[in-house]
Amino acid sequence: MLLPQIHQPSDLKDLTTEQLTVLAGEIRQFLIEKLSATGGHLASNLGVVELTLALHYLYDSPKDKFIFDVGHQAYVHKILTGRMDRFDTLRKYKGLCGFVKRNESEHDVWEAGHSSTSLSAAMGMALARDFKKEDNKVVAVIGDGALTGGMAFEALNHIGHEQRKLTVVLNDNEMSIAPNVGAMHKYLGKIRSDRGYLRAKDEVEQLLKKIPAIGGKIAKTAEKLKDSLKYAMVSGILFEELGFTYFGPIDGHDLPKLLETFHQADNVEGPVLIHVVTIKGKGYLPAEADSYKWHGITPYKIESGQVLKAAGHPMYTEVFGKTLIELAEQDERIVAITPAMPGGSGLFPFAARFPERMIDVGIAEQHAATLCAAMAMEGMKPVYAVYSTFMQRAYDQIVHDICRHNANVMFAIDRAGFVGADGETHQGVYDVAFMRHIPNMVIMMPKDENELRHMMKTALEYNDGPIAYRYPRINGLGVPLDQVLTPIPIGQWEKVREGDGYAILASGPMVQMGIEVAEELKRDGMNVSVINARFMKPLDEEMLLDLAARGTRMLVVEEVSQAGSMGSAVLEFYAARGLHDVTVGLMGIPDEFIEHGSIKDQQREAGLTPEHIAESLKALAPGQAWTFQKNSV
Amino acid sequence: MLLPQIHQPSDLKDLTTEQLTVLAGEIRQFLIEKLSATGGHLASNLGVVELTLALHYLYDSPKDKFIFDVGHQAYVHKILTGRMDRFDTLRKYKGLCGFVKRNESEHDVWEAGHSSTSLSAAMGMALARDFKKEDNKVVAVIGDGALTGGMAFEALNHIGHEQRKLTVVLNDNEMSIAPNVGAMHKYLGKIRSDRGYLRAKDEVEQLLKKIPAIGGKIAKTAEKLKDSLKYAMVSGILFEELGFTYFGPIDGHDLPKLLETFHQADNVEGPVLIHVVTIKGKGYLPAEADSYKWHGITPYKIESGQVLKAAGHPMYTEVFGKTLIELAEQDERIVAITPAMPGGSGLFPFAARFPERMIDVGIAEQHAATLCAAMAMEGMKPVYAVYSTFMQRAYDQIVHDICRHNANVMFAIDRAGFVGADGETHQGVYDVAFMRHIPNMVIMMPKDENELRHMMKTALEYNDGPIAYRYPRINGLGVPLDQVLTPIPIGQWEKVREGDGYAILASGPMVQMGIEVAEELKRDGMNVSVINARFMKPLDEEMLLDLAARGTRMLVVEEVSQAGSMGSAVLEFYAARGLHDVTVGLMGIPDEFIEHGSIKDQQREAGLTPEHIAESLKALAPGQAWTFQKNSV
Repeated sequence: MLLPQIHQPSDLKDLTTEQLTVLAGEIRQFLIEKLSATGGHLASNLGVVELTLALHYLYDSPKDKFIFDVGHQAYVHKILTGRMDRFDTLRKYKGLCGFVKRNESEHDVWEAGHSSTSLSAAMGMALARDFKKEDNKVVAVIGDGALTGGMAFEALNHIGHEQRKLTVVLNDNEMSIAPNVGAMHKYLGKIRSDRGYLRAKDEVEQLLKKIPAIGGKIAKTAEKLKDSLKYAMVSGILFEELGFTYFGPIDGHDLPKLLETFHQADNVEGPVLIHVVTIKGKGYLPAEADSYKWHGITPYKIESGQVLKAAGHPMYTEVFGKTLIELAEQDERIVAITPAMPGGSGLFPFAARFPERMIDVGIAEQHAATLCAAMAMEGMKPVYAVYSTFMQRAYDQIVHDICRHNANVMFAIDRAGFVGADGETHQGVYDVAFMRHIPNMVIMMPKDENELRHMMKTALEYNDGPIAYRYPRINGLGVPLDQVLTPIPIGQWEKVREGDGYAILASGPMVQMGIEVAEELKRDGMNVSVINARFMKPLDEEMLLDLAARGTRMLVVEEVSQAGSMGSAVLEFYAARGLHDVTVGLMGIPDEFIEHGSIKDQQREAGLTPEHIAESLKALAPGQAWTFQKNSV
Repeated sequence: MLLPQIHQPSDLKDLTTEQLTVLAGEIRQFLIEKLSATGGHLASNLGVVELTLALHYLYDSPKDKFIFDVGHQAYVHKILTGRMDRFDTLRKYKGLCGFVKRNESEHDVWEAGHSSTSLSAAMGMALARDFKKEDNKVVAVIGDGALTGGMAFEALNHIGHEQRKLTVVLNDNEMSIAPNVGAMHKYLGKIRSDRGYLRAKDEVEQLLKKIPAIGGKIAKTAEKLKDSLKYAMVSGILFEELGFTYFGPIDGHDLPKLLETFHQADNVEGPVLIHVVTIKGKGYLPAEADSYKWHGITPYKIESGQVLKAAGHPMYTEVFGKTLIELAEQDERIVAITPAMPGGSGLFPFAARFPERMIDVGIAEQHAATLCAAMAMEGMKPVYAVYSTFMQRAYDQIVHDICRHNANVMFAIDRAGFVGADGETHQGVYDVAFMRHIPNMVIMMPKDENELRHMMKTALEYNDGPIAYRYPRINGLGVPLDQVLTPIPIGQWEKVREGDGYAILASGPMVQMGIEVAEELKRDGMNVSVINARFMKPLDEEMLLDLAARGTRMLVVEEVSQAGSMGSAVLEFYAARGLHDVTVGLMGIPDEFIEHGSIKDQQREAGLTPEHIAESLKALAPGQAWTFQKNSV
């Protein structure tokens, strides 16, 4: 076994190519075993074993900078940089992060959970290097899916223009997470199948030499033709046109070829793009056979590839997908738009039922939003299905194209609130704060999966502008699902527990937690109302005025950034009405990034627990002056 | 004169090509005369006279949809669609909008002030058309600068993949607003200069026919060579590779050629890209000679081209540019990054002094932000100079790449608050609300141009993460500029007027307005403190506690979205401290989009006037219960 002797990249330097190949096999075995217990991003990491070995063998990390786009394919990098023994804690609370993480290792120089940032990061590091007159290498590894994100193109455009020395490794596995779409994907496919042209190049040059020197016009033309041969015969002309020297396509599992090509590329001035073709899941047959399923996987049995799934009520995501089909059957204006997340968004059944009404635009959140605006303005009812965290990419398009046009776009915001193991780059905790201040926006969150269905109907019937429903990455409560869906009046909250003197104003999963707390507090003689504050915007002003008139002491509880979210809207409302002596406490996520772990871990870290809600309510009693910031608990 | 007879596009249909050419001249004359009085976007509109005439002559608006990317080049379109007589009111309050505006005309189908949205909009309209089984044309007109914005590439990728019928007119004037940068720009330049290749194509085909049939290997190669000829000889191969049929480059001032090419393009299946080369400012020599200066112009003398500028104190923008040079002379880590706005951001003097430290990335706000993060992480001190409204594009990168990494990026946010004539797409009124909830962010706004200088020093000395200073699009107050710059303690506000019982908490230009109000109110026997709340985050907690302890009645006044901004933070602070009976009123911009006009008009529409501030303060007196929403005044 070689692997146990690898504690840092320098331990690779004396290995032969044959030994590196053996090591690659050991790493695969390690990943397949470890992840069978913890789950994680298996397929993508199995695809980059040789590539990562080649990088660490040839270059000198951390002096040389490796930047992994969407750092979930950095497990091999973690293994080679001394973190092998922490894989039992992968993606667990306080354990090894599933992404590149600077506080884990000096070899982790750039963190990313969102796609397409690596080229900008590489360019920034190359510029800084040149300013500082240093001479380290900068290497970005980016997948073909991530390459379609707009900011990656912005970076290509800049890198090609500036001609700084840096290396882009295009890890082409013909997949983003879902099978790739888009013209760029087709183009890469063409390059892969066009390898014959490369071989033909020499032959063509021979041919040209045989053309007799006719002189005059024809000779000049022949010369032009010759000039254009490079243009015609080089693969990757699109990248060449953008200012890169292109190498490839090469087999990403052929270590000698990888080493040779990286070596060649080192001698080139200016930016280089190395097109490496890899197989997602390489070396583990179940993952090779269905790399989509094996992208992010729960624990599994190694021999059979059988995935171990916890039983539970259907997830919100599934209920969304199912309900959308029902609605689409009744209303042909409905179209679903996803930025490369058809599966994660629960839209596979919809795509099977209505293939022509399912639009996957690739990793392109901005384009998706503006596309929705235009479709809505032409009378369609587009549903923009997106994770809360990725929706951040479309903030400007939501302001400028959707809300300013007051277009009837429906947002299905999945992964709202804490997301668990994916950690801080993926938390869906800002969407209420970044949408609430945009005119024309309506924002909802259901207390259970049945209410989600009614909200979807509400959104469909609403024709006065953009409307969003957001739901968490958890199982539903298992409540019965109504077959007849009834729109909820816009802005109408629901009192789910009648109390007196105190009220919890909660949204989403916090409603259920609020009910539990209220039941507990009965023992202390407190009779707490629980309000399902299912509209984050607009607020239920009538109910708020009524609560204030009765002198109710209120606690707003939400699993989003406390700053700027619904609690803040409640305070603004009372201030605007000149009601300056209403008692309102706020509980939300404090002003910090919350790392990976279980959703329960994350809620606890943010102070969103039944115990803390109870304490906070009690602290609202007359004569108390107490802070609800989790930091001061 | 033909122009007075054109009231709608159908009035063009019977004109001959010669008459259209005459009309083009009359339109130019009209624009040059009208804009000499009102100012506006002259150069870009002079460049698209023939193009717009060709579109309205050939197609049938509004059935056919014209989408203008960054709709400031739609003046000719406005003239041809019955709005000629409103040009005296151009960009004035309640007057003709400087951009495409749906509430002005049925011919205006898509509004945009931000760049690069047109391709997504066109794709959305084409999809909707196909779903509805209609057969209208969809034409997007996009400049070469706008093409470099990431979302335009996302759209190209999707359009090329879907192969719907739509037309992209690439209006290539070798400029965005500033001279273009980037690899795409170089590529377009190459196409323009490569026209010889097109002529050579026929000759080469003749040549190939002359190659004797040698048979076997060589013959096969010759066949391949022939196949590849199209590849080699067609201009615009980059667009062809992305799935478009490419036409061009053609002279955008040659009306017969334009009409012929559009006609040809109509017969093509799938998406078409027509590459039109135009001259910004065409037909008015001063504008042709310096199209950058004449992009957006104030009133001018027609004969001399002399621009009439109002005298006044230096603008904040100028003070920023000057101060950055001073700081950069002392600290070589400073680098300035702009997304295509070197002039508008006041950075031309900096660029002249430090050309190598000035990085213009093109229209690429996302890339610019992530680039800054990476440079900061490598020890540089990047200044991201950006307009508030365009910064919206980088929201996700600010969260995910800058704040999550806690990178030492300095944001110079220009055009903060109302922007005047550019109107609702350009208002800089959301940045406080969209940045305040992001952990690690520090946000400042100076009360005058001298304080801006100290804030720039503050930001430079600050090494604990991202920090922003925002400033308005107005002249400074003319205060003396300190030569020695002293960092301001982070979070420390300043009491600029000592009062008792009442306090105005204001930021930026509202501080001065607050002082005026306070002086006025002396006559009514009120003694109002005025606080320069120069940090929107973090707040001056000590001062807030002191104000509350004294029972001060406070009014927060800010020229940003009232929802989610600093006033909201003040309320959250008191709620978190359990201080539920503090009197705080909020004044900010209500929950609606505010249209073009002067900044004063816009402040009045939002209720941000001295009179309203005074009334609002009085309403905070004990026993009052009154709303500060401008709508209910």
